[in-house]
Amino acid sequence: MTRTLRLLLAYDGTGLAGWQIQPDRPTVQGLLIGALQRILGQRPRLVGASRTDAGVHALGQVASLETSSALPAPVVARALNALLPAAIRVLDCREAPAGFDARRRALRKRYLYLIDEGPVADPFLRRYAWHVPHGLDARAMAEALGLLRGTHDFSAFCAAPGRDRSPTCTLLSTRVIRRRHRLGIVVAADSFLHRMVRNIVGTLVETGRGARPPGGMAEVLASRDRARAGPTAPPQGLTLLRVLYPR
Amino acid sequence: MTRTLRLLLAYDGTGLAGWQIQPDRPTVQGLLIGALQRILGQRPRLVGASRTDAGVHALGQVASLETSSALPAPVVARALNALLPAAIRVLDCREAPAGFDARRRALRKRYLYLIDEGPVADPFLRRYAWHVPHGLDARAMAEALGLLRGTHDFSAFCAAPGRDRSPTCTLLSTRVIRRRHRLGIVVAADSFLHRMVRNIVGTLVETGRGARPPGGMAEVLASRDRARAGPTAPPQGLTLLRVLYPR
Repeated sequence: MTRTLRLLLAYDGTGLAGWQIQPDRPTVQGLLIGALQRILGQRPRLVGASRTDAGVHALGQVASLETSSALPAPVVARALNALLPAAIRVLDCREAPAGFDARRRALRKRYLYLIDEGPVADPFLRRYAWHVPHGLDARAMAEALGLLRGTHDFSAFCAAPGRDRSPTCTLLSTRVIRRRHRLGIVVAADSFLHRMVRNIVGTLVETGRGARPPGGMAEVLASRDRARAGPTAPPQGLTLLRVLYPR
Repeated sequence: MTRTLRLLLAYDGTGLAGWQIQPDRPTVQGLLIGALQRILGQRPRLVGASRTDAGVHALGQVASLETSSALPAPVVARALNALLPAAIRVLDCREAPAGFDARRRALRKRYLYLIDEGPVADPFLRRYAWHVPHGLDARAMAEALGLLRGTHDFSAFCAAPGRDRSPTCTLLSTRVIRRRHRLGIVVAADSFLHRMVRNIVGTLVETGRGARPPGGMAEVLASRDRARAGPTAPPQGLTLLRVLYPR
């Protein structure tokens, strides 16, 4: 008799090689599976809603696992926090409906990309933001970003075509928020292609510097050509904020 | 002909052995002197307003140095930022009156001590806060802290009696601020004894847990006995916010 557990996770991705398990490298999935094996006495199957890249952070990653252990969910959470490095914390662990799959059942994910626009890089943000001391045109960036809303083929912003089952995603909401020398780009979609947020941000920063007209974003999108978009923004500015599921 | 420069510095103290230069250890003063030696061609005398301990951070440390180099101040700042590790940033560099001493001329320093009260430690605050998941009584802490305001002999909160010239300091303002699971303790004084803020915070946390009555703070202060105060709070929660000078 197996049961399904749902984990809510936060992690500082700085020293980690991303979500997905890899031999001999510290990954979130690998460290979690290792700790769960010690706690549950068996190696569980663990699925994460988002396969965050190396250096990318999470405030609300969701993972699902199946186990035949009868250990109460809060005990699993406490035991995981005792075994995991301080960079990874289990914020919540609860029973989920049988067969709940954190990746397939996700309705929507929300990411933040943080840019430090200060003339001198803030030493406290060097692990959590991209330093772009250029005085970006936030209005042009918001306009360009807004053109991506809706259901489209996002191949122009996809690092590895073919890795994802379909290049079509629905971008549900977009925001550009400025507070003094900090610029936050918040995007929510039903799904994201590989490096899609970072490729969008790289293109937006070129727009914000005036190197691209805001309206050019529509042409880049329509081209489905990765070469037409801007460079990939560095990973440390990206944080998975939240994953939403059906009630 | 020498001139005096004034540096405004921010640093993430996480991997650093504090302000004061030490052989074979990365210190803010040591790294600055090493970089200045390369830039100015001479080893300058460098004085910091606060000798922050290992692991303590700064948003607004001030340092003074004398040099016979004619290099413009903004060039010194840019060259320092090019040579220093990203954990240390020069926010500003400007000419100061001859003989300006960042330590002796300081009128007032302001520190923040940050406590993470969340049930699970925030992985993004593990380097910048003390995790105390106890539901502290912030009102009792503010009351106890307020009793320390004014001019007193602070020996009860001093780690190394005799290191400081005089144990008398004037605590000018105190604040306890709570926002969700974050508790900030802000104190400003004309000077601070060695580990004074961390020893006050350790005592306040015992007060917040109910282990000490708020009024007991006056007796601890009057005793001038370090053994009567609480433990030393860990360094990573402490940040030097600002140093004020006469106009």
